[in-house]
Amino acid sequence: MNSSTEYNQYEKIYKDEIKKIESGLSKLLRDKKPESLYTPCSYILNGGGKRLRPFLVLISAKAVGGKFNQTYNAAMAMEILHNFTLVHDDIMDNSNMRRGRVTLHKKYDTNTAILAGDSLIALAYEYLLKDCKDNTKQIVSNFTKAVTEVCEGQSLDKEFELSRNVSIDDYKNMIYKKTAALMESCCAVGARIAGATNKQINAVARYGKYLGMAFQIQDDLLDLVADESEFGKTVGSDLIEGKKTYLLLRAMEKAKGVKRKSLQRVFENKGVKKEEIGFYKNLYIELGVTKDAEHEIIKYTKLALKNLPVLPNEEGRQLMNWLANILINRNK
Amino acid sequence: MNSSTEYNQYEKIYKDEIKKIESGLSKLLRDKKPESLYTPCSYILNGGGKRLRPFLVLISAKAVGGKFNQTYNAAMAMEILHNFTLVHDDIMDNSNMRRGRVTLHKKYDTNTAILAGDSLIALAYEYLLKDCKDNTKQIVSNFTKAVTEVCEGQSLDKEFELSRNVSIDDYKNMIYKKTAALMESCCAVGARIAGATNKQINAVARYGKYLGMAFQIQDDLLDLVADESEFGKTVGSDLIEGKKTYLLLRAMEKAKGVKRKSLQRVFENKGVKKEEIGFYKNLYIELGVTKDAEHEIIKYTKLALKNLPVLPNEEGRQLMNWLANILINRNK
Repeated sequence: MNSSTEYNQYEKIYKDEIKKIESGLSKLLRDKKPESLYTPCSYILNGGGKRLRPFLVLISAKAVGGKFNQTYNAAMAMEILHNFTLVHDDIMDNSNMRRGRVTLHKKYDTNTAILAGDSLIALAYEYLLKDCKDNTKQIVSNFTKAVTEVCEGQSLDKEFELSRNVSIDDYKNMIYKKTAALMESCCAVGARIAGATNKQINAVARYGKYLGMAFQIQDDLLDLVADESEFGKTVGSDLIEGKKTYLLLRAMEKAKGVKRKSLQRVFENKGVKKEEIGFYKNLYIELGVTKDAEHEIIKYTKLALKNLPVLPNEEGRQLMNWLANILINRNK
Repeated sequence: MNSSTEYNQYEKIYKDEIKKIESGLSKLLRDKKPESLYTPCSYILNGGGKRLRPFLVLISAKAVGGKFNQTYNAAMAMEILHNFTLVHDDIMDNSNMRRGRVTLHKKYDTNTAILAGDSLIALAYEYLLKDCKDNTKQIVSNFTKAVTEVCEGQSLDKEFELSRNVSIDDYKNMIYKKTAALMESCCAVGARIAGATNKQINAVARYGKYLGMAFQIQDDLLDLVADESEFGKTVGSDLIEGKKTYLLLRAMEKAKGVKRKSLQRVFENKGVKKEEIGFYKNLYIELGVTKDAEHEIIKYTKLALKNLPVLPNEEGRQLMNWLANILINRNK
């Protein structure tokens, strides 16, 4: 079997499994009352997306020798929890669009979105518990740690908006909490439900964590270098909003003189005009920070993949490897 | 020992135990970072209140033969969860004051309050888990059901604001979800942690549920009939806001002719003026709805107390009896 056939094989598994997750998500609130609460919840849960987090749960269970069908509920729980963060983050960030659709709080109202997000947390715990057997305490504890981390991460992200002194280390701590901790938890929970040893759980958790770090830095990079026709949203929106991304913070570390002054304007004006995006993109390239970002993405992906050899299941390892490669080569 | 000495004895236990809960709550976020998240959380957790929910956890454990110190963490978890609901409800209701202090979202901002509420949910699970041993799945499941119920209850409460056709049954379903379900869960969780039988768990759960129903109807009644100097907030504020309380809904059931027209004005004008409160208070008294509310409170309190005889611990039963009597005679 050549490499491209293999890729097709894993892509097929991904697509088939995600279809099951989507089907499960579309059913789980059917006919639930009150509609004023659950119709908005269905709206966000059925809004598509990569479904990366549930897939991490499934392949982690597989990689330690378990089966996908041991963890479908936990996988949905992780996607539900992720969607809670999207709903509340979109309120806080005053975002209008998400996955090509109007955000929940714009379609309904802020109160509805607050409450929908809250009930998604409870729904996530409800589904997580369905897949828990003997080791419920550790699984729920791990999941709860992820909920705490995403809240802390979002809080740091909001703090950064007001702070002039954000270092690359601060940034990495923030993205660990906001993005990587949940992916770490997906892997740990999937493996634990499948009855993994502590050594295996730690290995898949590290895979998820480092994959999450690479994923977030690539998100920052794609926001600037993606092809707008494929990307599906405005290229350069982080610059327009003056977000303290890896690129901007790294550029501030490296720039001197006139270049530094140009970057300081991004802070002072809390963002740039749309027509300035090209200028800053060139500045980043001249400073080598897009290259630096690429190196970070590769570094974290390698750190993720380093954990695979101790995992007992060949197909699970291959799926983890495939996923890391797909993510590194994505264009949106 | 005469009755008043006994009451002092139970009041002393209540005060001593609540002191321990308050001390625990004041310590649990000390030095936690980021401050932008945890300082607001501490603000709400240290804002006082009756601490009724943690006390229900403790006395339920006691009543089934357990010890207070088996459930201090779970008791704090219940208070933390209750405080999450206060923070998010205050945003949705646009409330300015809570327990004599500025509400969290007014002291900080709405985004901070959303995030603080979210992280309180996670904190509640974290503390609940500390007291879980073998029966974690059932305990977490019971707790999660309560989180879902309070979200559904709040959603119904918001629906009622816009609806003209709210029955007393609708109202009771709403207050069950918004208030009584959490008190039911406090009792069930306390008893389960203490190793109770299912029969005992069901008995204390019913005690908590019916106490919660009585508690909420009394809240509605006190809002109108309390002595303002003792009550600590504006008497008649539910009428001013046009809230669909037990009193208003029951009055609509009973009133005819001119009286009915007066009540319809409350709906149409979405509330009454401060100077009209006296008029409506008299109308309620003439219609007998304050008496009806008193009967409901007594009915639910009796339904609560009916569950005590199967519980094995005398002091626990006495504390439950004392608490029900204290609540029925409260003036705020």
